[in-house]
Amino acid sequence: MSQRQLSLNAFIPSTGHHVAAWRHPDAQADGGHSFRHYAQIAQTAEAARFDAVFLADSAAVWGGSGEDGLTSLARSARAAHFEPITLLSALSAVTEHIGLIATVTTTYNEPYHLARKFASLDWLSNGRAGWNLVTSANQHEAQNFGLAQHVQHADRYDRAEEFIDVVKGLWDSWEDNAFLRDKQSGVFFDEHKLHTLHHRGKHFSVKGPLNVARPPQGYPVLVQAGSSEPGKELAARTAEVIFTAQQTLADAQAFYRDVKGRLAKYGRIPDTLKILPGIFPVVGRTEAEARDKFQALQDLIDPVVGLSLLSGMLGGFDLSGYPLDGPLPDLPASNGGKSRQALLIDKARRENLTIRQLYLSIAGARGHWQIVGSAVQIADQIQQWFESGAADGFNVMPPTLPGGLDDFTSLVVPILQERGLFRTEYRGNTLREHLGLQRPHNHHVPQSTAAAA
Amino acid sequence: MSQRQLSLNAFIPSTGHHVAAWRHPDAQADGGHSFRHYAQIAQTAEAARFDAVFLADSAAVWGGSGEDGLTSLARSARAAHFEPITLLSALSAVTEHIGLIATVTTTYNEPYHLARKFASLDWLSNGRAGWNLVTSANQHEAQNFGLAQHVQHADRYDRAEEFIDVVKGLWDSWEDNAFLRDKQSGVFFDEHKLHTLHHRGKHFSVKGPLNVARPPQGYPVLVQAGSSEPGKELAARTAEVIFTAQQTLADAQAFYRDVKGRLAKYGRIPDTLKILPGIFPVVGRTEAEARDKFQALQDLIDPVVGLSLLSGMLGGFDLSGYPLDGPLPDLPASNGGKSRQALLIDKARRENLTIRQLYLSIAGARGHWQIVGSAVQIADQIQQWFESGAADGFNVMPPTLPGGLDDFTSLVVPILQERGLFRTEYRGNTLREHLGLQRPHNHHVPQSTAAAA
Repeated sequence: MSQRQLSLNAFIPSTGHHVAAWRHPDAQADGGHSFRHYAQIAQTAEAARFDAVFLADSAAVWGGSGEDGLTSLARSARAAHFEPITLLSALSAVTEHIGLIATVTTTYNEPYHLARKFASLDWLSNGRAGWNLVTSANQHEAQNFGLAQHVQHADRYDRAEEFIDVVKGLWDSWEDNAFLRDKQSGVFFDEHKLHTLHHRGKHFSVKGPLNVARPPQGYPVLVQAGSSEPGKELAARTAEVIFTAQQTLADAQAFYRDVKGRLAKYGRIPDTLKILPGIFPVVGRTEAEARDKFQALQDLIDPVVGLSLLSGMLGGFDLSGYPLDGPLPDLPASNGGKSRQALLIDKARRENLTIRQLYLSIAGARGHWQIVGSAVQIADQIQQWFESGAADGFNVMPPTLPGGLDDFTSLVVPILQERGLFRTEYRGNTLREHLGLQRPHNHHVPQSTAAAA
Repeated sequence: MSQRQLSLNAFIPSTGHHVAAWRHPDAQADGGHSFRHYAQIAQTAEAARFDAVFLADSAAVWGGSGEDGLTSLARSARAAHFEPITLLSALSAVTEHIGLIATVTTTYNEPYHLARKFASLDWLSNGRAGWNLVTSANQHEAQNFGLAQHVQHADRYDRAEEFIDVVKGLWDSWEDNAFLRDKQSGVFFDEHKLHTLHHRGKHFSVKGPLNVARPPQGYPVLVQAGSSEPGKELAARTAEVIFTAQQTLADAQAFYRDVKGRLAKYGRIPDTLKILPGIFPVVGRTEAEARDKFQALQDLIDPVVGLSLLSGMLGGFDLSGYPLDGPLPDLPASNGGKSRQALLIDKARRENLTIRQLYLSIAGARGHWQIVGSAVQIADQIQQWFESGAADGFNVMPPTLPGGLDDFTSLVVPILQERGLFRTEYRGNTLREHLGLQRPHNHHVPQSTAAAA
């Protein structure tokens, strides 16, 4: 298996990615608070040899916007669920190989707490932790942390740049071989291998050192999801995996070239950053079966929920005053996630969609790449993107959970494996090893020493 | 088993409570980063029907003070280990009944994050979470969170009072029966049963609501450890369990009367707050065997470590310039934990101890009640405290882990069970049920409605 291999992560919001998934007859509607449900999902993904499970996050209820916000929220399943770091810590105890990626914002957290929890998760899981750095797209978070308004987009990225450097500095507090634990001499660690950070910057003053040993992976895998200009630049400097929303092969290829092309100026080679677009696969044994499955979900979308979802994805713009069957109005610039908003407006104009048609078009994939088809059709498309410079793998976003993941792992994965595109056994133990990423050296240790150790 | 029952928690610092535990021949010196080690400990405590395992915490390295700080730190096992919330989340997946209590400071955290993580842990464990609220005794924490100096004692308690009210308000965001998940009508939750906090106070502005359902226990069990005047008052108003350091029966009785006597003014009855002193039991099949075990540990104490431990417990006062075999000098007032410092100074004066004798006397129990004896002697003492108004149970602090816990569960617990003082089977599923604490009603729901529901 010397051929280049796909990476596959499972994106696992409680009842599935489709906005009406919880209403599906097979859905476990209470999945957001059921550990048994999540253990089953993680074990399914592990049995299929996925690289990781991946949890989105927001430090606030994802409220709808406008007058109907509460009503639409009450008709969707996203208001309440497990917190990701606690959930992944528990999942670490019932899995052995699969990576565990949690989203945490840098905008409303402290780097010491974050560095510590991810280091601890990496130790609990023997090297399977990943951190998806976001700067918060949910406008409601600010008010849970003492601010009247969401921090401006540019300021969020400025803080994120410093935040990640502090976190990496804290993870390097201890050299890998600092702990001697020599019972005879009484020396627990070599004091020359402990490094105090003494960081003083624009946003943070953090003395350190971290009170967790250097993580088994050196650093947990660094994931990012921003596709704005500062988001791409931060990723080019620091990320090892990018989770991105791309709807067409051409767009995905352009994004791939763009981001990989930015690496050289930071002294990085292209293979040190893996680009994984989201894919929303509705899998059937035939294309017709897949279309029926998809239509059954679309029929369950409450218009109030669809409209609110669209408003939210347009940066909180209130669409409730506009006719559902009229065109999308002109929108002001937003402080939310910029890239997603631009993609949506572009789509509405290009395809001449009404507001209703637009929300129906996104209610499944929510801005990600949607394929409704047979397992072979989906495998073909995945292979095409993978082999034509559009992706190093995918974040698989099952329409329903556990059913949509079962469909993908039982029908699509075997085809990818037969074609030699995806592993049939794990060849390593850590998330880094699954992704083909090197273990970073400790910046306090000269590289020649590190290599010799 | 209608008789009043002891509560027993296991205090589980990585290699044990004795400062030299890690050097013991049987010690698992890397226990602080070994999930297997912790899973074994938690399962041992569960098999013995303990109420909970209990993790201390500090959001910084517990550095020694003075010039020799690093040298002493390097000779102790406390510098690096798992973070408690991640560790307990993982332990929730390999246990079924035992409670999971994590210490988290209110001084360097945000209430929204804390409320969320403990609610999530309570769901993961099906109602077994407890939060030990502290205001930080470790002076080093401040500098990891942008402050030059530790927050003053009075300000810490002022913040803690508001913090706990915000957290309880967030836990009440959702009524217990808010989630309908009615697939037919499309209504996921009853919007009238969602309550937005809108808290605006001196220290915090938190809008809410929480994005986790109301915890299975209503609130995770609220534990506190402060024994200062503001600490006792905060506990009397809000705590359900107090973890306290008491060295003599008379002191413990006085503390017990004092705190229980403060409850009435907050409208509480004495049984709603359980007082659990720490106990450091060195258990032998005979008293002689216990004394040998203890001496073996004492012989492993490095003087540098002992002196630094003592300095830290005296609020960071640097003792390195004073002769080890001379008396304790007069100490200035400290900003650290006040109660522990006063107890220690009192002990040194009362027993006319040198600095060395003082650190040897605390290196095991560290200010807690120390008993070195046969299992029967220890059971007798526990029974005496329990039946004479000094304790509702104990936080058992094994000298070594796992060995010291094995000794206590295999030798002492059966005696307590034979005497009808401690359960032989769990009679409930939640930590509240183990402790005999009521599930708090949601303050948005009139009590009559709550009772009828």
